[in-house]
Amino acid sequence: MARGQTAKVMDAVRAHIEGRSLAPGARLPSVRAEARASGVSVSTVVEAYERLVAEGLIRSRPGSGFYVSASAAPLMLKAVAPRWDRAIDPFWISRQSLEAAPGTSMPGCGWLPAEWMFEGGLRRALRKVARGNAVELADYGSPLGLEPLRALLARRLLALSIPAATDRIMLTESGTQAIDLVCRLLIEPGDAVLVDDPCYFNFHALLRAHRARIVGVPYGPDGPDTKAMETIIAQERPRLYITNSAIHNPTGATLSPATAHKVLSLADKARMTIVEDDIFGDFEQEPATRLAALDGLDRVICIGSFSKSVSASVRCGYVAARPDWLDGLIDMKIATSFGGGRMAAALLYETLSDGAYRRHMEEVRRKLGRAMDRTIARLERLGFTAELRPRAGMFVWCRLPQGADAGHVAAQCLGDGVVLAPGNAFSLTGAASQFMRFNVAQCGDDSIFASLERALR
Amino acid sequence: MARGQTAKVMDAVRAHIEGRSLAPGARLPSVRAEARASGVSVSTVVEAYERLVAEGLIRSRPGSGFYVSASAAPLMLKAVAPRWDRAIDPFWISRQSLEAAPGTSMPGCGWLPAEWMFEGGLRRALRKVARGNAVELADYGSPLGLEPLRALLARRLLALSIPAATDRIMLTESGTQAIDLVCRLLIEPGDAVLVDDPCYFNFHALLRAHRARIVGVPYGPDGPDTKAMETIIAQERPRLYITNSAIHNPTGATLSPATAHKVLSLADKARMTIVEDDIFGDFEQEPATRLAALDGLDRVICIGSFSKSVSASVRCGYVAARPDWLDGLIDMKIATSFGGGRMAAALLYETLSDGAYRRHMEEVRRKLGRAMDRTIARLERLGFTAELRPRAGMFVWCRLPQGADAGHVAAQCLGDGVVLAPGNAFSLTGAASQFMRFNVAQCGDDSIFASLERALR
Repeated sequence: MARGQTAKVMDAVRAHIEGRSLAPGARLPSVRAEARASGVSVSTVVEAYERLVAEGLIRSRPGSGFYVSASAAPLMLKAVAPRWDRAIDPFWISRQSLEAAPGTSMPGCGWLPAEWMFEGGLRRALRKVARGNAVELADYGSPLGLEPLRALLARRLLALSIPAATDRIMLTESGTQAIDLVCRLLIEPGDAVLVDDPCYFNFHALLRAHRARIVGVPYGPDGPDTKAMETIIAQERPRLYITNSAIHNPTGATLSPATAHKVLSLADKARMTIVEDDIFGDFEQEPATRLAALDGLDRVICIGSFSKSVSASVRCGYVAARPDWLDGLIDMKIATSFGGGRMAAALLYETLSDGAYRRHMEEVRRKLGRAMDRTIARLERLGFTAELRPRAGMFVWCRLPQGADAGHVAAQCLGDGVVLAPGNAFSLTGAASQFMRFNVAQCGDDSIFASLERALR
Repeated sequence: MARGQTAKVMDAVRAHIEGRSLAPGARLPSVRAEARASGVSVSTVVEAYERLVAEGLIRSRPGSGFYVSASAAPLMLKAVAPRWDRAIDPFWISRQSLEAAPGTSMPGCGWLPAEWMFEGGLRRALRKVARGNAVELADYGSPLGLEPLRALLARRLLALSIPAATDRIMLTESGTQAIDLVCRLLIEPGDAVLVDDPCYFNFHALLRAHRARIVGVPYGPDGPDTKAMETIIAQERPRLYITNSAIHNPTGATLSPATAHKVLSLADKARMTIVEDDIFGDFEQEPATRLAALDGLDRVICIGSFSKSVSASVRCGYVAARPDWLDGLIDMKIATSFGGGRMAAALLYETLSDGAYRRHMEEVRRKLGRAMDRTIARLERLGFTAELRPRAGMFVWCRLPQGADAGHVAAQCLGDGVVLAPGNAFSLTGAASQFMRFNVAQCGDDSIFASLERALR
């Protein structure tokens, strides 16, 4: 009898780990809490936990509790392939999109179709670099990265009133790597980190890799709910808040100046660092308030890349931060990826300093505006409601018709070769099960709406 | 009086943290041990530690002890610049080499001069990719990475009897990132990891970032000292052993088949995973035994890149591992760097499938052989002794003339614009203070030997 109950507790823990609701590094409920929740005795839970320790699936830390082993997840995962039955987790959209067969429709993916990107500029840049000097072609980059590109980024940031001098900018392999390095420097396992709810799903995946405690702050049309943020800060004492500037992913909302000011005041009082991800900056029609501009790049760390506007194939991002943090970031970059990608930086520099880039982005913004109107209209005909009409960008965040579950619809459409972005991939609270993010640049195909209509029936 | 003693303990801890002998995440000596070592009372140490906790420099983990805060180091580091007074630590050589002004002599650096690299092949590759399709230019790579490059790597590995099918290989941004991802998946803070003593200094830097307990195994002319390894495994129960195959960095030694077999037997018994870094494979005259070949890529994870032979500017590495680990590695890659560098993979594929690459490497090996003989002869004239004459590669590991300290000589030569590689950067035990690594491809300049001669006087 007791043996059966022990096995039941063990199975439940295993299921949580496989389903990733307990990520590697996560702390298990205390023995007492688990006993209460499962309606078994404390000694049954102790036995179950101890057997799972023996299996290597969890670990005990004396005085601290039980944690999911780092090695637990990979040993239990299945073979590599797009999987329809994959739970809606922070990897759902990225894996389905990145692993999609050619020809798959991807209204849920987070980037423009290849033919919308700055193809001509990139071809010119490749030919120019092909004639460049041997050092550019063959050597490691300097720790901060290619100086002319950093100078160009400094000028662009200054235009947004962000005082990032050339030597306060470090190039990285990607915007994601920039956030990762900041987390490696500033976060300890178990630290609380605030994110928007909903937010870009990969913030969740990244923070799980750091074993941070992820806490969501409701995000509205003007930015985060600062009342809620104040309460959460008092409770959780977060070390970091990670957010988007310019155009919020997934909601398409824009941070208002008043909210920005309030967020900074809260951060100052709580001595909380903010990472402002500016990846959609070039999609704005009018530049919105940047936290880093109000703050003078003191408590705010600014990161970005051009994966959405120039090329996702050429990997290069940046981080702008206080000078006294840069040395630590450099060491961390060297330790974990050694020299930076000089070639990628050179290609990006040639592309961004090409006068045609500005005209290219004007055209992209025009096309996105048209696609936005068209997509919202088509979705409304199916019963979707756009939460707000974004001022710019490629995303619109929609409520599904009454009663429809985004996860079910996404799973069904996947069967038709349509990759969607169900709301709960963006929300840890599961509050977004009635929502979906649509990329209007990827919604040109009639079959998407036909598939949605079938799934909604 | 007690107040003065408290301050003294605090200063000593601060100095250790600044000098990086206590890295972020490192555990401080226990209160009792510190009291004994400093000759003060236990309560004095308790007070000192508690004040440092209040300063945010260290953290207490109940039941576990005191640890250096992750945020301690960056807040204390100086501005970014090459520093002569930098302590010889795992970053010494990388920072001095990567930050060197143009024209600096770098006999201590770990790569070939730019003009020795496969420049022509890379120019051809750039022009070819410039004519390629839009997806290649603009889109994210797939999670595993460009299939034709993985197929090419699979064939190369098979030629070394390593059974890495195309779908058992994942591309990464660099060889370093490949090891980093493996560590993120398999290592928990505090886990013991074996490295060779001496070993590539960046293994130390990387493992510190993971807060691993780093344990060195003496490395001799045939590979690691397996007697010592057996004892250390029994004591430390390491999770991982990270080593070079083919040509050992820094000693230039080659793993013998008998040692390889013995290492694998020990690893099997202890259920220890091995990371085999094959980065110098293409420099071998005759391929040496690979651990992954004996093991069938089960317990051994094979990683590599072409930063040393094709280009360090184009970032692309790989990891070949058991299929059941790949899914976890993919998730970790997406979480921390999102899509792979499709462009870098395309450039590397074009370069490696260029028939001229084989002839290029033959020429590099010939040049290295001549440079090896010439450099050893010149060093011997100054009183250096090569520990062994490497069969291939760019490194020779030399003992300094009687009584000379490699750290002092390196600091002095840095004043002449010569970046050397002092032994203790490769050894955590400090046992290599009489040794230096020389890169024979970077030793063509007479001024290097003049500077060494002056420093040795």
